[in-house]
Amino acid sequence: MPYEALKEAVWKANRDIVEAGLVVLTWGNASGADRRDGVFAIKPSGVSYEHMQPSDMVVLSIETGEVVEGSLRPSSDTPTHLHLYRSFEAIGGIVHTHSTNAVSWAQADSDLPCFGTTHADHFHGPVPVTRRMWEDEIRSNYEHNTGVVIVERFEELGVDALSIPAVLVAGHGPFAWGDTVESAVENAIVLEESANMAVRTLIVNRNAEPIGKALIDKHFLRKHGTDAYYGQG
Amino acid sequence: MPYEALKEAVWKANRDIVEAGLVVLTWGNASGADRRDGVFAIKPSGVSYEHMQPSDMVVLSIETGEVVEGSLRPSSDTPTHLHLYRSFEAIGGIVHTHSTNAVSWAQADSDLPCFGTTHADHFHGPVPVTRRMWEDEIRSNYEHNTGVVIVERFEELGVDALSIPAVLVAGHGPFAWGDTVESAVENAIVLEESANMAVRTLIVNRNAEPIGKALIDKHFLRKHGTDAYYGQG
Amino acid sequence: MPYEALKEAVWKANRDIVEAGLVVLTWGNASGADRRDGVFAIKPSGVSYEHMQPSDMVVLSIETGEVVEGSLRPSSDTPTHLHLYRSFEAIGGIVHTHSTNAVSWAQADSDLPCFGTTHADHFHGPVPVTRRMWEDEIRSNYEHNTGVVIVERFEELGVDALSIPAVLVAGHGPFAWGDTVESAVENAIVLEESANMAVRTLIVNRNAEPIGKALIDKHFLRKHGTDAYYGQG
Amino acid sequence: MPYEALKEAVWKANRDIVEAGLVVLTWGNASGADRRDGVFAIKPSGVSYEHMQPSDMVVLSIETGEVVEGSLRPSSDTPTHLHLYRSFEAIGGIVHTHSTNAVSWAQADSDLPCFGTTHADHFHGPVPVTRRMWEDEIRSNYEHNTGVVIVERFEELGVDALSIPAVLVAGHGPFAWGDTVESAVENAIVLEESANMAVRTLIVNRNAEPIGKALIDKHFLRKHGTDAYYGQG
Repeated sequence: MPYEALKEAVWKANRDIVEAGLVVLTWGNASGADRRDGVFAIKPSGVSYEHMQPSDMVVLSIETGEVVEGSLRPSSDTPTHLHLYRSFEAIGGIVHTHSTNAVSWAQADSDLPCFGTTHADHFHGPVPVTRRMWEDEIRSNYEHNTGVVIVERFEELGVDALSIPAVLVAGHGPFAWGDTVESAVENAIVLEESANMAVRTLIVNRNAEPIGKALIDKHFLRKHGTDAYYGQG
Repeated sequence: MPYEALKEAVWKANRDIVEAGLVVLTWGNASGADRRDGVFAIKPSGVSYEHMQPSDMVVLSIETGEVVEGSLRPSSDTPTHLHLYRSFEAIGGIVHTHSTNAVSWAQADSDLPCFGTTHADHFHGPVPVTRRMWEDEIRSNYEHNTGVVIVERFEELGVDALSIPAVLVAGHGPFAWGDTVESAVENAIVLEESANMAVRTLIVNRNAEPIGKALIDKHFLRKHGTDAYYGQG
Repeated sequence: MPYEALKEAVWKANRDIVEAGLVVLTWGNASGADRRDGVFAIKPSGVSYEHMQPSDMVVLSIETGEVVEGSLRPSSDTPTHLHLYRSFEAIGGIVHTHSTNAVSWAQADSDLPCFGTTHADHFHGPVPVTRRMWEDEIRSNYEHNTGVVIVERFEELGVDALSIPAVLVAGHGPFAWGDTVESAVENAIVLEESANMAVRTLIVNRNAEPIGKALIDKHFLRKHGTDAYYGQG
Repeated sequence: MPYEALKEAVWKANRDIVEAGLVVLTWGNASGADRRDGVFAIKPSGVSYEHMQPSDMVVLSIETGEVVEGSLRPSSDTPTHLHLYRSFEAIGGIVHTHSTNAVSWAQADSDLPCFGTTHADHFHGPVPVTRRMWEDEIRSNYEHNTGVVIVERFEELGVDALSIPAVLVAGHGPFAWGDTVESAVENAIVLEESANMAVRTLIVNRNAEPIGKALIDKHFLRKHGTDAYYGQG
């Protein structure tokens, strides 16, 4: 059972996003990579969270995209995950949900501004929205092309995937990631809560201003990087 | 007990809409049809969900509208269900709720735009709102006429009931349906969540644009119809 | 134990409003009257819902306003309840909460429009907001005067208390009532949900129109009065 | 074990803010002071609420800011708490959260107006927002300087810390306090609910007016001070 621990971690992440209230019905999927072995495990397509077992997780090669373990069909969003693992080499886990508020920003075609420290603790700036996809990108290889527009946006902005570990796919919803599948889950939770706060911030003050770079740096860097001083580390 | 399985399924659907948070007090009803026998079963009127048993479900003939089994009075919305079963021959289940956000769109007299893929996965375009009913339609045969304005709207738009398996009755609330009562429940859940996301989308961007036809087709058709590739089917 | 059943019903109502999510901390109180004996029972002041027992309820005379049974101090809002029982002779129960959305309409100094049938099923028209109270009305006999401005508003509008069994006290929050304490609880629940839907209706359509008189009559009267046909009655 | 009772109370307060729904992940901390001994106890940094024990609480001297008991690193927000205990001599407990609606007002750079009696029962006027911090205040001694801008704002306004026992730190979130850690928790709960109501009040009426001084006095003073008459006291 070479991938038992990986499948267990990915199974747990798929349960955690349900428990965190990020998932309605079966809309969501988490995957985790083992970079040493060049594989990632992902949830099967359309299986109810309730009955899902660790052994149902499907393992694929990052290089070839082929299934290397598992008998179920992998999530229909697998080509998106695959493209992200290939393009963002530092990431070790990905979470896709249709969480209410993050989707609302994606549907509004709007970057999620960094309105406060809750956001800045996990995202080192605004969470970008992708451009809308072209018809031919939608008609063929749609899920792969979803990954393509995400990566395109990060290249355009010149930001590192682990600095802003999430994106809003326009008219669709969020993908979050992290160095592990556990941190991807955490980032998905923070994204949803930041998006919720940002909706309400706009109700109070239509012209609310993002916080400045000094405060963003302070909060992000006290938790991440070589000078971090948060926690018991 | 010829209708035991049908009554059990309908009873379960009536519990499921409560558990999904779509129902306050006793405001909601689910029905399911057995097209071979030409009947449908529906919840009794004003009975608390807590004490309801499968045997309390009332079975009616689709042709005559008469009760063929059950001793309680059927839901006061029965004539609406009856008219929908007669007019939309492909449907096998109907769910009516007063779920918060779907009602809010109905009260706003607004079609629910297809702002994203969450919506498009289940509804092949915007969910229409009916016209307001005339006074004489309200004063007599109100529940029957509610069905009439629903069907009128679908004929006007020329859309197939299973392509957009829900409607908003102006100033009232949603009806959702499906090929089975289980899919009607699922569509009612998705409608409420899509309506919730759409409210928040408008807060972020008053001029938010619906997604295009290519993306609607992609999402709806990857789950429905002959080329579906979602799930383990 | 002459008032045992009454105290039990009032105690249960005070628990039910907590369970229905209408109460934060100890902000809420329910009372119920026994008109034959000319008394009402009410929750004691500032006691935690968790530890409250039926025997803690305080019974007062409607005529004299004196405590006739119970050793605790009655709710500080008792003079409001007393004035309502004296002025609205048909009512048998009163519920006061600070439920989120009903309070928001009260704080906005706005009547709650009858935007749909959810509202009309229980309230035969808009739920009125009182005027703001004068300084001298606030400074002395505040809780009594709260009842006075409520009754004043209903007299001004010429509406019967059981037709519209709730009010919004400006800058404060809702009082709901009914022929029994159980129906007062139900009306408080419907008021909060109608207020919630109305907030969202305004987000979708700033110029949303209330439903017309024919539809209000239809829904209110199919549940209330001599021609009611909802339920198993 | 000199500080056992204090650590138990502070541990319980840290659990209570989670149970009250004010905390996502580990974003929040409560502390409580023993003024006679000149110390306060606070939650350790970045420890999950689930596994936290009373013995994990860290005790510090208010005078020196040194840890006097406990082996874990105290919350990274400890310097803010320290500065508040030093500046506001009447307070005995502090709660910091990232609760959704209070954060939204802080992100909007807006004082929370006193729109109603729910607010006035605990806060004797609007809850102030601080100014945004300068870059040098952020870059060094950030958490201490957070305390500095809070105290500066209260001095500017000339208000007593126990009259308005909370603040919104601009672009960050709320701190609430009280004479004990238990009252700090209660104030944090009321602040969040008042902020929630105020968001919805603005949706209904963009120009909603705060309540007047007479009503604020009435509600605050019937619960606080020498003429209080709420509760069983």
